[in-house]
Amino acid sequence: MGNHDSGSRRLEGEGRVGRKPRADGVESRRAILNAAANLATTRGLEGLSIGELAQHIGMSKSGLYAHFKSKEELELATIETAAEIFERDVLGPAGESPGGLGRVLALSEAFLEHLERRVFPGGCFFATVSAQLASRPGRARDRVMELQRRWVEQFAEALGQAIAADELPRGADVEQLVFEITAMMIRANFTWIATGEPRVLKQARVGIRHVLERVAGSTGCESRSFKRQATRQR
Amino acid sequence: MGNHDSGSRRLEGEGRVGRKPRADGVESRRAILNAAANLATTRGLEGLSIGELAQHIGMSKSGLYAHFKSKEELELATIETAAEIFERDVLGPAGESPGGLGRVLALSEAFLEHLERRVFPGGCFFATVSAQLASRPGRARDRVMELQRRWVEQFAEALGQAIAADELPRGADVEQLVFEITAMMIRANFTWIATGEPRVLKQARVGIRHVLERVAGSTGCESRSFKRQATRQR
Repeated sequence: MGNHDSGSRRLEGEGRVGRKPRADGVESRRAILNAAANLATTRGLEGLSIGELAQHIGMSKSGLYAHFKSKEELELATIETAAEIFERDVLGPAGESPGGLGRVLALSEAFLEHLERRVFPGGCFFATVSAQLASRPGRARDRVMELQRRWVEQFAEALGQAIAADELPRGADVEQLVFEITAMMIRANFTWIATGEPRVLKQARVGIRHVLERVAGSTGCESRSFKRQATRQR
Repeated sequence: MGNHDSGSRRLEGEGRVGRKPRADGVESRRAILNAAANLATTRGLEGLSIGELAQHIGMSKSGLYAHFKSKEELELATIETAAEIFERDVLGPAGESPGGLGRVLALSEAFLEHLERRVFPGGCFFATVSAQLASRPGRARDRVMELQRRWVEQFAEALGQAIAADELPRGADVEQLVFEITAMMIRANFTWIATGEPRVLKQARVGIRHVLERVAGSTGCESRSFKRQATRQR
């Protein structure tokens, strides 16, 4: 996802130097896709109509069709745009933290702050969109599921590092931990988009701490490492 | 919700005795609403088109319009139908269990079995629909949020009973517990509708047990009451 991002930035840069039409094309494509990603978090990908989207960004319908030959192509490009934003806003920064428990907390915190800052009007792009794509097989669903799997894998990897570094006990069930930790975030997302109550983001933070304390505490690892990490994070 | 249910059953009964046209009307209304509730779990309420719904159940569009004057009326009636099904399938049976921890586990188990039995093709009607309604203010959203609040309150009430009965310690944070327990179910719902992996239902069960063990264990209440309940349930 990081490659996509730097790739498109390079394209914009090239355009600006001497090839104006190309730059305009790239920029308007980007404007369309940013608007589409925003709209999709409140209406779903299926709710994206090319006509409405054109109106939304003040472009003609035929102008928009010049960028995307089909609804599916628009949907797939919208998913990549959301993935770039998520990479830049959540995965990238969290990936700079040291591995292990610190990374687990950094990934969670980056996600909750992503909600808090209302990067998308409808909360997490992937949570909202995947709820609707679940029963619509196709390339869009496959891609969204792949991106979600990658997100989940980041937690599994960080938890594996935590076990290797003796921050968590050897017998910890990583899959179960990933389920419980991501449950707190997904639950928060749903109440957050419906009510905007900041309390749910706090409940998710406390919930994640509880999950980790339970496991870290079960071998006395807790005092050594987890409490230090959690305190630093809060 | 129970009242709605018995009310409509009474109407059907009356119709059957001597007023055939009335009974037909009630039955076809019910057929429309059952189909609408099913469709809404895969497409959302917004995705319900009167034309498509008519085709789906083999009725003319005008026949369908005779039952529902507007899309909003259809949406609201669909929500009540889903609420009746949820009452009959989840809340009613769980409500018969004794209060306290047993009720918490019965409510959770009834929800997970409701998913497992695929009562709706798109998992939990309210989880799917509310994700889409979040950014669409109106009567449908208000009603869905009210019904979700009631579901959450059932857990809060049962946890309050558990504290009163010394199954959980006095200082237990009921709101936080409700958040964590429902998080496991909502998380399971989302992966379940996307992948159909039964493993996530098991992960939710284990997650809920972890949440309760953490609190029950913190005062030694665990050995006395919780383990007994959890064992009975599994």
